[in-house]
Amino acid sequence: MVLDKRPRATDLGLKIGILPSGRNNTITDVPDVSVGHVTLNYGDGPLVVGQGPVRTGVTVVLPCSGNIFEKKVTGAFHIINGFGKAIGFPQVMELGVIESPIALTGTLSTWRVADGLIDYLASRNSGVQSFNPIVGECNDGFLNDIVGRHVGPQHVLEAIERAVSPNVEEGNVGAGTGMTAFGWKGGIGTSSRICNSSGKEFVVGALALTNTGDPRELRVNGFQIGEYMLPPRGKSIDDGSIMIIVATNAPVTSRQLGRLARRAVFGLGRIGGIASHGSGDFVIAFSNYQGNEFIDDDDITNLFRGVVESTEESILNSILRAETTIGRDGNVRHEIDIDKLKELINER
Amino acid sequence: MVLDKRPRATDLGLKIGILPSGRNNTITDVPDVSVGHVTLNYGDGPLVVGQGPVRTGVTVVLPCSGNIFEKKVTGAFHIINGFGKAIGFPQVMELGVIESPIALTGTLSTWRVADGLIDYLASRNSGVQSFNPIVGECNDGFLNDIVGRHVGPQHVLEAIERAVSPNVEEGNVGAGTGMTAFGWKGGIGTSSRICNSSGKEFVVGALALTNTGDPRELRVNGFQIGEYMLPPRGKSIDDGSIMIIVATNAPVTSRQLGRLARRAVFGLGRIGGIASHGSGDFVIAFSNYQGNEFIDDDDITNLFRGVVESTEESILNSILRAETTIGRDGNVRHEIDIDKLKELINER
Amino acid sequence: MVLDKRPRATDLGLKIGILPSGRNNTITDVPDVSVGHVTLNYGDGPLVVGQGPVRTGVTVVLPCSGNIFEKKVTGAFHIINGFGKAIGFPQVMELGVIESPIALTGTLSTWRVADGLIDYLASRNSGVQSFNPIVGECNDGFLNDIVGRHVGPQHVLEAIERAVSPNVEEGNVGAGTGMTAFGWKGGIGTSSRICNSSGKEFVVGALALTNTGDPRELRVNGFQIGEYMLPPRGKSIDDGSIMIIVATNAPVTSRQLGRLARRAVFGLGRIGGIASHGSGDFVIAFSNYQGNEFIDDDDITNLFRGVVESTEESILNSILRAETTIGRDGNVRHEIDIDKLKELINER
Amino acid sequence: MVLDKRPRATDLGLKIGILPSGRNNTITDVPDVSVGHVTLNYGDGPLVVGQGPVRTGVTVVLPCSGNIFEKKVTGAFHIINGFGKAIGFPQVMELGVIESPIALTGTLSTWRVADGLIDYLASRNSGVQSFNPIVGECNDGFLNDIVGRHVGPQHVLEAIERAVSPNVEEGNVGAGTGMTAFGWKGGIGTSSRICNSSGKEFVVGALALTNTGDPRELRVNGFQIGEYMLPPRGKSIDDGSIMIIVATNAPVTSRQLGRLARRAVFGLGRIGGIASHGSGDFVIAFSNYQGNEFIDDDDITNLFRGVVESTEESILNSILRAETTIGRDGNVRHEIDIDKLKELINER
Repeated sequence: MVLDKRPRATDLGLKIGILPSGRNNTITDVPDVSVGHVTLNYGDGPLVVGQGPVRTGVTVVLPCSGNIFEKKVTGAFHIINGFGKAIGFPQVMELGVIESPIALTGTLSTWRVADGLIDYLASRNSGVQSFNPIVGECNDGFLNDIVGRHVGPQHVLEAIERAVSPNVEEGNVGAGTGMTAFGWKGGIGTSSRICNSSGKEFVVGALALTNTGDPRELRVNGFQIGEYMLPPRGKSIDDGSIMIIVATNAPVTSRQLGRLARRAVFGLGRIGGIASHGSGDFVIAFSNYQGNEFIDDDDITNLFRGVVESTEESILNSILRAETTIGRDGNVRHEIDIDKLKELINER
Repeated sequence: MVLDKRPRATDLGLKIGILPSGRNNTITDVPDVSVGHVTLNYGDGPLVVGQGPVRTGVTVVLPCSGNIFEKKVTGAFHIINGFGKAIGFPQVMELGVIESPIALTGTLSTWRVADGLIDYLASRNSGVQSFNPIVGECNDGFLNDIVGRHVGPQHVLEAIERAVSPNVEEGNVGAGTGMTAFGWKGGIGTSSRICNSSGKEFVVGALALTNTGDPRELRVNGFQIGEYMLPPRGKSIDDGSIMIIVATNAPVTSRQLGRLARRAVFGLGRIGGIASHGSGDFVIAFSNYQGNEFIDDDDITNLFRGVVESTEESILNSILRAETTIGRDGNVRHEIDIDKLKELINER
Repeated sequence: MVLDKRPRATDLGLKIGILPSGRNNTITDVPDVSVGHVTLNYGDGPLVVGQGPVRTGVTVVLPCSGNIFEKKVTGAFHIINGFGKAIGFPQVMELGVIESPIALTGTLSTWRVADGLIDYLASRNSGVQSFNPIVGECNDGFLNDIVGRHVGPQHVLEAIERAVSPNVEEGNVGAGTGMTAFGWKGGIGTSSRICNSSGKEFVVGALALTNTGDPRELRVNGFQIGEYMLPPRGKSIDDGSIMIIVATNAPVTSRQLGRLARRAVFGLGRIGGIASHGSGDFVIAFSNYQGNEFIDDDDITNLFRGVVESTEESILNSILRAETTIGRDGNVRHEIDIDKLKELINER
Repeated sequence: MVLDKRPRATDLGLKIGILPSGRNNTITDVPDVSVGHVTLNYGDGPLVVGQGPVRTGVTVVLPCSGNIFEKKVTGAFHIINGFGKAIGFPQVMELGVIESPIALTGTLSTWRVADGLIDYLASRNSGVQSFNPIVGECNDGFLNDIVGRHVGPQHVLEAIERAVSPNVEEGNVGAGTGMTAFGWKGGIGTSSRICNSSGKEFVVGALALTNTGDPRELRVNGFQIGEYMLPPRGKSIDDGSIMIIVATNAPVTSRQLGRLARRAVFGLGRIGGIASHGSGDFVIAFSNYQGNEFIDDDDITNLFRGVVESTEESILNSILRAETTIGRDGNVRHEIDIDKLKELINER
């Protein structure tokens, strides 16, 4: 894979929003956060359930180093459109904490991945009898043998082991391997913002798994590119889903973090998303701040802004960085044509 | 007032989104819906609580003709940011119906306006002992003697009597008289879309009362105008609120209508909103369809799209149509400079 | 009024639950909490809207002494059955604070009472342009000229002035004047519990405005009295509503307080409530703890228990203490027959 | 197993509530509903993770005969206390339908059981790429090798195959094998009510998986038995969880069904539950009515009552029918002493 040949939004000179990015413009700019992918990409030709072709994977976000079950981080969920299978949020909403790595995968692997998180957590916390795994999912069935459920618990453990910081691979990797965004090949994207609040600087980062959007509605930094440029096969597929992970080190309570989570939808709106019927859209947010002095709500708006901007840019990066992928039954998702995109942006 | 001298988005040649507008591109394109305003605009100089200056009013949306308490319409609410005083939604959420005109006003007049709705409903429904009035509000205290609560029950009755269709006044009228949007004078705006669903055409209309937004983030059809053009007094005031009323004649259940209501946020996102801390943002939705054959959820996405697009355009119209207003203590909200705006749009 | 002739639950030897009561077994056992009533009880004969007969009032609970808008207390709401008009909770849910006295009244006076709270708050907080009044309501239209809306802003101010601690009048006083509970005369009741949590003692108090319940289902400390004893006029009226105010001085966050609020329903269940269709049942909770060291969720169950037990006993007290009332059109609500009740309890 | 030697509530002459029971007083009185259990009960002695002892199982409720994915039934969820891992409700809340058998099991087997439901659904619906499995759970770790996750997908398939009507085994069977209720051995219980609504009779049934409750608070038909009778080992264990499945054939919309679901909590309250911190309490409701003529909300209260009463009796039956069980490390849960219970009931 030569993903680094494809540009991010900043490489195209795009400046999304008004806040500065973090050092790497990734979710891992939030201190102590790391990301790991396992990509499963093999087989070609007609779909044979249980055999392939396989275009899927798993992506994990570790909210902190060390034993997350013991440390726990402040957590919140927001359901934009509930047509999805995401796991773990009743407890997060009730108790305001996340005690598990956050995993993303293809829809029908959701529960095996959750079971893999149990393997991971139980092996590190002997004697504990209850864990609340967090899994988000999008449907990669257009390219992948989704019913075959090729992601297993071992891939979860492997993704956790591989988790690194600060470099986060984007595009068709991990859970993003088989995804589609605004009709183009999508997948994983990330971004971050530096947010001033009450005189201090905090980082807000986002990581998106994108599988949503109508090609006609894609907006690149506000420019409705979908008016001028559609994927080679014009079939309008606007169902899918999006999972947005929001991370911060800002000192926020779970109530305040819920307010942050509810702002991700504005980033999705800016890029042209509308949460179509079939798009199960979820936001999973955490803060790994561990003290007990919290910001005032009066000082929270810049954190909201950081969520909006890093979400918009994460989604855009997931498209820019993804490469054309041929999947089961010869189904193709084309990468967005960067040259044409540049041309359009410069011309307007 | 010569509001008709100022253009709407379509007069500037802007085409927001991909769906066609209804005949008048107003919420009253939804059959049987009407809108009435009472504008209170008098007094000048320093604020004397209880005396003025007065820059406020009330706007009512009538979801159907005749006795709404008897007819009832399908209703739904969505709270984007709950820092607001909007009235009536527990019952709407529980029972899925709206049985009252929907009124909008300035924050501290909320309860007197609700009491005025009781006057109206009780006088037409003798013997009934319970009504659920619906009131939304934004804070017009920058221009208006808000603590003076100059809107009384009689203004509600007057606004209901004046309710007309299809012409809807926009800008600084009714509840919009004292409002601010993205740092510019805002107020009332409206728009509509024709939405195909299951082979039939339905209308989705929106009416927004705008008092939210950071000047730097305003996007006109995606173009971040706020980078090039700020209000004369650059003070960043991003708190405020927005009330969005969504109307349709589409045959949707209250559950489906709730899904529509939750899409208005995407329109707000497209124009640059982020629901800052102090912005109490609410969506009130109704369908005046009275039968019992409903669309499938599979056919609902175009209605979602109609909500997104008509919301975005309503907000934009509220700004374009509003005129410079000087209020209490000489506070000024400037109208957006249309010529400069045209220039910027043509140049880009 | 000779309310003190009628017994409370403890006077009958009933021991509700397993926790000890506070000193006075009232909501005012929570330090710094006070309660005030204004009772409007005049006129007889046929209903003439606007004239009477009047059987209504207003009850206020002050969560703390001093200026509550400046102090603010931690707040939470829970909607058991949303068929009601209660005011103020979007903001409480979003920000987790209550900044107003909490008022209770008859349904159609809700908004005038809210406006009275604005009078109160605005006069004490010059320059402030936004307040979030909290009002709960039940429907007293069976006895009262409800459409006449006889409670006005001045009664709210009067109730606030009269607020006292520790003595709380119960039965048909204040907002309880015209209410019905389980077919019997109901109204206001209160109770409290001492709750151990993390080695410290805290007080949880409840105050209920009761207007709900089917006579057949009334349970006195678990004994289904409704099998043996029904109101003289057997007409089953199970609609109505209940407002439950939960107060504590325990150091809980707004998230934790929401958990407490959600436990009041168990007290309502124990006494035989089922939240019938027409019963708009709401819980308003606050903690006037002002520090920033909070209990662990692991230590919260006893506080839950305190909510359950004090709610059950509050409802029971509201019935025991209320006296027969004849209202508009000669409508009668009978007080529960204490002698017969004692007999039944002793016999079983 | 000689479960039928132990009585149900009705065998003790207890009449819970005021509505008549269905023919068998089980959830399967709702036409077309069936229930299947697989009980895993083997091994003794000290806990060896992965080996045992095993005291667990899986219980499935089939909302209708035939292919539930194609038929779908109206569905709703209610979260009483979100400290739990129940799966599937975002989609149920968004779309108002259940498309999967409902499975109950021990906490850490939740995701393997969900995966088993995918096996079942995918094998019967070739070409479909998305399913929303529904799983509820309680923690059986006191008796069971819970970390060993002994319930696998094959047990789910087996439980579905075994699903029968009208006879429903109760007590320590299926998912109930290792559960504890109010300090006594608990497990599975069920009950039903015939509910009149708008002149027609409908059935409401409940099935509870009980693992919650403080021994001191247990109330048998209102009689607080916990004052007189505690489990042999008095250790107060009030954490646990309860899953309540509510079934009906009444013609209700998903909104109305949500209202039914929210009434189960009153049944839990009547028997002494308080949803302690650690008790993750969820309600899963369905109606298998397939037409499009729905009852009015005005006619819904009797259905609420049916939910309350059948929930209370289901929980009681789960305790009465369960037998003493010795589990891992010699941990014992004692069955409630029926003779002593009878004596107490007769004496009071």
